[in-house]
Amino acid sequence: MRVHLPKKHLAETLAQVERIIPHRSSNPGLSLLNLELKDDTLIFRGSNLDLDIEATLKADVEGEGQLAIPAQVFGQVVRALPGELVELALVDQELEIRSGSFDTRLQLSDPSSVPSLHFPDSYSGVLNGKLLGDALEHVRYASAVAEYQQIFRGVKLELSDRKLRAIATDGFRLAYYHVDETSGLEGDLVIPARSVDEMVRLLGNGEARLELSEAQVSIASGIYKLNVKLMEGTFPDYERVIPAQFLVTLSLDAKTFAETVARVAVMADKTANNRIDLFVKDGHLEITAEGAYGRSQEGLEVQQEGSESQIALAYNAKYLTDALQHIDGRMRLSLSGTTSPSLLAGLDQPSYLAMVVPLRTG
Amino acid sequence: MRVHLPKKHLAETLAQVERIIPHRSSNPGLSLLNLELKDDTLIFRGSNLDLDIEATLKADVEGEGQLAIPAQVFGQVVRALPGELVELALVDQELEIRSGSFDTRLQLSDPSSVPSLHFPDSYSGVLNGKLLGDALEHVRYASAVAEYQQIFRGVKLELSDRKLRAIATDGFRLAYYHVDETSGLEGDLVIPARSVDEMVRLLGNGEARLELSEAQVSIASGIYKLNVKLMEGTFPDYERVIPAQFLVTLSLDAKTFAETVARVAVMADKTANNRIDLFVKDGHLEITAEGAYGRSQEGLEVQQEGSESQIALAYNAKYLTDALQHIDGRMRLSLSGTTSPSLLAGLDQPSYLAMVVPLRTG
Repeated sequence: MRVHLPKKHLAETLAQVERIIPHRSSNPGLSLLNLELKDDTLIFRGSNLDLDIEATLKADVEGEGQLAIPAQVFGQVVRALPGELVELALVDQELEIRSGSFDTRLQLSDPSSVPSLHFPDSYSGVLNGKLLGDALEHVRYASAVAEYQQIFRGVKLELSDRKLRAIATDGFRLAYYHVDETSGLEGDLVIPARSVDEMVRLLGNGEARLELSEAQVSIASGIYKLNVKLMEGTFPDYERVIPAQFLVTLSLDAKTFAETVARVAVMADKTANNRIDLFVKDGHLEITAEGAYGRSQEGLEVQQEGSESQIALAYNAKYLTDALQHIDGRMRLSLSGTTSPSLLAGLDQPSYLAMVVPLRTG
Repeated sequence: MRVHLPKKHLAETLAQVERIIPHRSSNPGLSLLNLELKDDTLIFRGSNLDLDIEATLKADVEGEGQLAIPAQVFGQVVRALPGELVELALVDQELEIRSGSFDTRLQLSDPSSVPSLHFPDSYSGVLNGKLLGDALEHVRYASAVAEYQQIFRGVKLELSDRKLRAIATDGFRLAYYHVDETSGLEGDLVIPARSVDEMVRLLGNGEARLELSEAQVSIASGIYKLNVKLMEGTFPDYERVIPAQFLVTLSLDAKTFAETVARVAVMADKTANNRIDLFVKDGHLEITAEGAYGRSQEGLEVQQEGSESQIALAYNAKYLTDALQHIDGRMRLSLSGTTSPSLLAGLDQPSYLAMVVPLRTG
């Protein structure tokens, strides 16, 4: 069993697979990479239990077989190889890695300790990979960090015959991405945020094929196949909380707004929700913050519409900054009151919507 | 008291001064920046007790005075400023920072809590700043980390009427930089490695003026003045341990050697001093390593001279890698035996010499 391939292809593919495989695990088999040689392909497999990955590289293969090796060490060796071509060979129960005058013998691990991974033979749905990646990437930031209720740490993906929709929320803010595209599948999936990050990274611009089963979604995109474990539990009824009526609507430049918020927020009190205050009156938006070291303020001219001539609200500055990272050009900030959610959306970005709940200032 | 200056100048200078000033300290006064306005200059002062810094910027100044503010917060505000011009003004016992439509009021700290810093009025010695920086930068890596004897954590600087020399050692390796240049001063100084890093960063290409006193060396370079506290204690007698006779001398390409060492060392046992083995015979250098995951080897053709036709030694791979980072082109590796130090030097780099003690392999 022997294979020749360009170092560049091996190193690039390995780097993607290696990211998923844990460096250390209470189950040592999990830190192993499974390599299979067959039919002029070199196949990499690994898992972190939440996500299984398979990558298939074309290569010049003699013989066939499977072996298991420590993923991280193999990656370090491959990245350091001197030549442009690599030879991998099974010699005396070791994996020999040769390139130029360099020669490494890597001890094999017990292949039975590697988790057994199965990927679907066929896929019933299909989406554009970039579209799916964009949807997930736009909303992922709004999912909760560790201390929150489990289901908030996921991203919800809604597939139907009319739409693709991604939503994330931590209860204080929400991000929403909607396109009128169908994959041919129907289902509501909640995907762990960490797996979403890997999906965003691995989804190519081409076709992403999808297969749904009880507890996982499987995706094939380019040379990669993924099995993504789904989260259990009930995702909050987000549509109910998105307001439809607003007291004041502002139109302004998203980049200017984001930079101003970031600037003023330097003085915000980190121990009091990073509070910044917005006061709107007669087409002027004044942003202020005050903390232990002093206070900051900056004014912006805005287009103002709505029933109220003035309104004052406070936000966690970080939530505004996060929401604004995906908005370009002219945007709308829609205010529904001091205790009900505000909406942020780009005027030329119909797919993406961000919602932030104001801080109670009572 | 009011000053106008370009944001770029303020931000760049502040970034250098801010690096020195501790973010947190058991002495809160230490985290403060002292700002003085006088004679069309804005003067920044701060200290980490080991190192005092003063930076002087030309600016458009009205009035004069001194104030103290938290260095880190001021730095954050300045970096975030929107405009190209900044106005600083003392208003109602606050420092007002204005740029464009942005306005911050930073509370002043008690100026009496800032350490009182004094810089010399005159300097008796002078060196080229780049030369001094190069000397320090070449040897700094060989100084010891925390767990070693205090004096090993410094870099020794020898100034005389004939030479400038910098030396660092941790007892297992040594780096040495020598040039036939005089500053006009005489003295043996041991400078804490952390202060050496700041000196390397701040020394410009122009003239560095020097002043020695009992417990510190003061340096003026460009807009910066530094007081650097010296370490007490006896630096080891390094000249005694540098060998002058060698069993085998190899000539080889430094970059190829460094890359080969790094590559083979991936398999070295991290729990056993990162050991790699060198075996030289008949103009062939074979480098090998063996650890928990397997073994690596690579051969290099070299020019070999000396009384012995073959020799085998072991090293901590990291020590070779560190020593090689400053060597370019063709180099000499001089071996004095399996237990006495080896020397590494570039053939076209007469100033720099690295010494590494082989590992005991008994």
